[in-house]
Amino acid sequence: MMNTIGKILTLTTFGESHGPAMGGVLDGMPAGVDIDMDALQRFVDRRRTGQTAGSSSRAEQDRVEVLSGIWQGKTLGTPIGFIVRNTDARSADYEEIARCYRPNHADFTWQAKYGIRDPRGGGRASARETVARVIAGGIAIQALERLGITVEARIVQVGPHFGVAAEEHERLIAEVAKDGDTLGGIIECVVRGVPAGLGEPLFGKLHAQLAAAMMSIPSVHGFEYGDGFDMATRRGSEVMDELELREDGTIGTVTNHSGGIQGGISNGEDIAMRIAFKPVPTLMRPLPAIDCDGNPVTLQPRGRHDACVLPRALPIVEAMAALVILDNHLIKKTNVL
Amino acid sequence: MMNTIGKILTLTTFGESHGPAMGGVLDGMPAGVDIDMDALQRFVDRRRTGQTAGSSSRAEQDRVEVLSGIWQGKTLGTPIGFIVRNTDARSADYEEIARCYRPNHADFTWQAKYGIRDPRGGGRASARETVARVIAGGIAIQALERLGITVEARIVQVGPHFGVAAEEHERLIAEVAKDGDTLGGIIECVVRGVPAGLGEPLFGKLHAQLAAAMMSIPSVHGFEYGDGFDMATRRGSEVMDELELREDGTIGTVTNHSGGIQGGISNGEDIAMRIAFKPVPTLMRPLPAIDCDGNPVTLQPRGRHDACVLPRALPIVEAMAALVILDNHLIKKTNVL
Amino acid sequence: MMNTIGKILTLTTFGESHGPAMGGVLDGMPAGVDIDMDALQRFVDRRRTGQTAGSSSRAEQDRVEVLSGIWQGKTLGTPIGFIVRNTDARSADYEEIARCYRPNHADFTWQAKYGIRDPRGGGRASARETVARVIAGGIAIQALERLGITVEARIVQVGPHFGVAAEEHERLIAEVAKDGDTLGGIIECVVRGVPAGLGEPLFGKLHAQLAAAMMSIPSVHGFEYGDGFDMATRRGSEVMDELELREDGTIGTVTNHSGGIQGGISNGEDIAMRIAFKPVPTLMRPLPAIDCDGNPVTLQPRGRHDACVLPRALPIVEAMAALVILDNHLIKKTNVL
Amino acid sequence: MMNTIGKILTLTTFGESHGPAMGGVLDGMPAGVDIDMDALQRFVDRRRTGQTAGSSSRAEQDRVEVLSGIWQGKTLGTPIGFIVRNTDARSADYEEIARCYRPNHADFTWQAKYGIRDPRGGGRASARETVARVIAGGIAIQALERLGITVEARIVQVGPHFGVAAEEHERLIAEVAKDGDTLGGIIECVVRGVPAGLGEPLFGKLHAQLAAAMMSIPSVHGFEYGDGFDMATRRGSEVMDELELREDGTIGTVTNHSGGIQGGISNGEDIAMRIAFKPVPTLMRPLPAIDCDGNPVTLQPRGRHDACVLPRALPIVEAMAALVILDNHLIKKTNVL
Repeated sequence: MMNTIGKILTLTTFGESHGPAMGGVLDGMPAGVDIDMDALQRFVDRRRTGQTAGSSSRAEQDRVEVLSGIWQGKTLGTPIGFIVRNTDARSADYEEIARCYRPNHADFTWQAKYGIRDPRGGGRASARETVARVIAGGIAIQALERLGITVEARIVQVGPHFGVAAEEHERLIAEVAKDGDTLGGIIECVVRGVPAGLGEPLFGKLHAQLAAAMMSIPSVHGFEYGDGFDMATRRGSEVMDELELREDGTIGTVTNHSGGIQGGISNGEDIAMRIAFKPVPTLMRPLPAIDCDGNPVTLQPRGRHDACVLPRALPIVEAMAALVILDNHLIKKTNVL
Repeated sequence: MMNTIGKILTLTTFGESHGPAMGGVLDGMPAGVDIDMDALQRFVDRRRTGQTAGSSSRAEQDRVEVLSGIWQGKTLGTPIGFIVRNTDARSADYEEIARCYRPNHADFTWQAKYGIRDPRGGGRASARETVARVIAGGIAIQALERLGITVEARIVQVGPHFGVAAEEHERLIAEVAKDGDTLGGIIECVVRGVPAGLGEPLFGKLHAQLAAAMMSIPSVHGFEYGDGFDMATRRGSEVMDELELREDGTIGTVTNHSGGIQGGISNGEDIAMRIAFKPVPTLMRPLPAIDCDGNPVTLQPRGRHDACVLPRALPIVEAMAALVILDNHLIKKTNVL
Repeated sequence: MMNTIGKILTLTTFGESHGPAMGGVLDGMPAGVDIDMDALQRFVDRRRTGQTAGSSSRAEQDRVEVLSGIWQGKTLGTPIGFIVRNTDARSADYEEIARCYRPNHADFTWQAKYGIRDPRGGGRASARETVARVIAGGIAIQALERLGITVEARIVQVGPHFGVAAEEHERLIAEVAKDGDTLGGIIECVVRGVPAGLGEPLFGKLHAQLAAAMMSIPSVHGFEYGDGFDMATRRGSEVMDELELREDGTIGTVTNHSGGIQGGISNGEDIAMRIAFKPVPTLMRPLPAIDCDGNPVTLQPRGRHDACVLPRALPIVEAMAALVILDNHLIKKTNVL
Repeated sequence: MMNTIGKILTLTTFGESHGPAMGGVLDGMPAGVDIDMDALQRFVDRRRTGQTAGSSSRAEQDRVEVLSGIWQGKTLGTPIGFIVRNTDARSADYEEIARCYRPNHADFTWQAKYGIRDPRGGGRASARETVARVIAGGIAIQALERLGITVEARIVQVGPHFGVAAEEHERLIAEVAKDGDTLGGIIECVVRGVPAGLGEPLFGKLHAQLAAAMMSIPSVHGFEYGDGFDMATRRGSEVMDELELREDGTIGTVTNHSGGIQGGISNGEDIAMRIAFKPVPTLMRPLPAIDCDGNPVTLQPRGRHDACVLPRALPIVEAMAALVILDNHLIKKTNVL
């Protein structure tokens, strides 16, 4: 199940960047859930290219085509199959690349693994694959909303700039793009409204599932939840989230260093995590690569690429978070006879 | 499969801290692999308590009892079942805790999830569960050695102290323990000798699997590989791992910002990752807790606990890394007809 | 993973009978395997309707549209996504049925499970779903051929008629169809060329996997392999498959009561199994049903249905057998380090 | 997951016949279920040897040792690890067999698969493995009882004798045992009280899961449910289970040719299935075998073996049925949001 994620709610995706279509199957969605297809399309549109300066000029429409599992606006409990067509694929851009391995790309490693690869647009290694995640995640988000759970991602760092106002992001990225260079950054994602008791305490710790989901997004190099790496620098007495009885009769914590998870299980507080993205590896300047025989070559990038993935990654992060949380909501149901 | 990790090579663990035994089943181990039982016991001994200042005084022998799957020193291809007995369980220490929820512990969340819990020594939430991982991982390490792959973890940060010499770790921990306090820290793990081509490019990216495995270790709050979070602060031109043809005819990279993985697949370089541990939540000083009705209570910890988990976590980290790498070695075999 | 079958080679299907399309994702196919798309289409055409007397007059073209995973005639190692459009869906036929439960149909049980169902053409309970299996299985068959393994299914019983010549099948079915009635029957499937050593000895016994695969085909009520149920009536001394050394140096059995499998693992002989199909439940005569409130109603079937599923089931049986055998061929590779 | 069965409720078993112990891990059991350990031991005792004429004289005590997951008589929601020791292993009996392949045994196929095998008592291929299934199934049966679901297996055929009174079974088996021969037979299993709506409609059809579970029991060669193979000989009009509204307001069927399952989902009627067992392959007379080089040899069986497995197989069949039904009960909970 190499292209599948989840336990009860599972997403399987398929598609190469310049093949006929990208798609997926979301299985295990409960039956009878209202799905607003317009809202879903709007959510998917958030990751589309060509929307801001510094983002790829490839102009896919990404019109979601649901093929099964939703009927008369409701989920049927059957697998939700969906596709988006690849309409703007200029494969000619990639003929040179087919014979080369670019630095910080998956060219060499895919060749080592499979002995064959579709070089057009990165093939399946392209971040275009994430469109299927966003579709599935968008459906999950609508289900979570009915449970009072919301997911929100925001950019908290762009390259070396921490805590910069959202209006500044585009300008900072555009500046670097002008040099033909690219930027990494950090996204923070907060899930609100998760009741206490979600997550599996052992290998399936809620944060382990979230980590796997986020680390599976292209370009991600780090994951932390709660105080994360900073927690490692502290004494136990400094990060103690004391428990209290609240006025509404529920038990909560006074602080939230733990990021809403204790022992791998949600405690009812906001679940907070941060995801580190490396800079886009395709620069808009000559790239030092090697050909299949190991000879150095210089590539003139001609494809269309983002200078920073973060703006488009926001709905991807939200999608992955939603899939994990909804899956664990369903698993939780099986804890009692 | 909540207590299981892996795809082909799977580990399922069981056991509560103060129950009769901890144990596990390692399934999918190839047949005919020589296993040195003495070396395995020595590896398991590395995570034992009572060995250094600041570590728990609970004195388990942790004698590995292999019940199946290894015969005459060789694996049979059948599941390897194993247990270690819990011999030094002083359950009386935990009667008070049974009626309370401690801060930064899993007491409240387990109760929310299951409606019942074994409070003795943390029950299954105890880090004692990791002994099963170390046994299974120790077997995997022996198999990897036959493939020329080695795994090595070391402490790179103890609380606020970065890059401190190994001899200093014990002293720093002991110092904090004297205050009844605890420390977090960071472990770095390097896997050497992994050939290019291991890992699944999509949801099962090698670093996503490693992240899930590491984040499933108790107390872990963060994971990064290669340059990790630092990568997020850089421009693409600064972290480019240029490819080169080496004298031995293999293709490698000049630098290794990427930590040995590109597009989720190993590239033949060292796989490097860092894992952040929070400070141990059980302080040796009065703990502010609440009882089941939400009333504040002060607990006098009487169990036996480490002041810092890092020294004992080293073999756990190595074990989890080994399980993931060996699993992916096996998966790789199925990529060709 | 409710709509998924397989361990390494996995097939996930989706689609409702009268939705936009049926489809599937075949994941885990090894890379670099030549796929003949015309041969695949011909294989899929074998299960099409409207080809013989007594078969449904629904005239789907079932043109296979592969969306990913195959490029320039070769598998990429990536998931193979595919669809066939539902072009001839006359949903109006099913309005009455939406409010009723028909005998020996899945109407009532789906309602009990999901609380909602797509009644058009049986929705996902329609045998039309099997088109996705045939596509995936057709790909697996091509891979098996490269390994020297062939799969062949044939009708050995039509209703009460055993061992009837193939030319007679159509006539026997047409005869019953004239009465508005339907027939069951038995298909035998033989897999030749399977080397010794395939299958998992415990829960994944090769025949257990084959049984699950075959029993998952709509209308199947029984499965046996080798001498099957007849084996139960015998003494041990009567069904002993003695081993012998053959002239080519291989070890084989003199007889094959065991159907090519011992202890759940193939022994190199032909794998033989028989699958029992119930008669089609939709008669072309008034059907005694009940409505949602439990009131008896009489339905005049107006959809298009086969009088006997066996002719069209042949490629489905072959497809399921091929998927199981190829999956186990891949699993076998992981038995050695 | 080769030694694991189930989706939410999973059983993993381990152990070789003459190794230190047999055991298993039952994961996914809901929390808070009362378990009567004495009743469990009694259930396990039903498959013990040495109880009737014609059964193996190996005298294992099979004392169930639960190592985790049950505390103070209740399940914790954590994995239930358990073992039984192998106390009466006379390995010396098997030295000769280590160098030979017996007919209708797994000797040759295991060697072909793994290149190594533990020949003592059949190693893991021994039916002794089923003790772990009976323990896990016994726990599942207790949980099902709380849901009003019961499982009952009985022998309906012993060799050629159909419908013989239970008192006669022992005599018929003893008679054949006197000749040093063995007998096959058929067990019928009925599950009562299953509500409508259990089972997955596609690959996980309830009867497909039951088939896989039953076919995984050693010696089973056939499975059918409802009217089974007989269904194949009929016209649709003859096997129609008409629906009716019952006095208690529920919907049921007048007849039950379908065996309680429609479209892979339970319909509320009794679930009835039949399982065909081959005769025990180890005769108590000289066995024609071959050695590893292919030379014919004659073996004098000296181990301890049943002349007919059916009496001891009854609790095994019940155990497997219970595991499948309880698993599907849990899965059903996830069908709604």
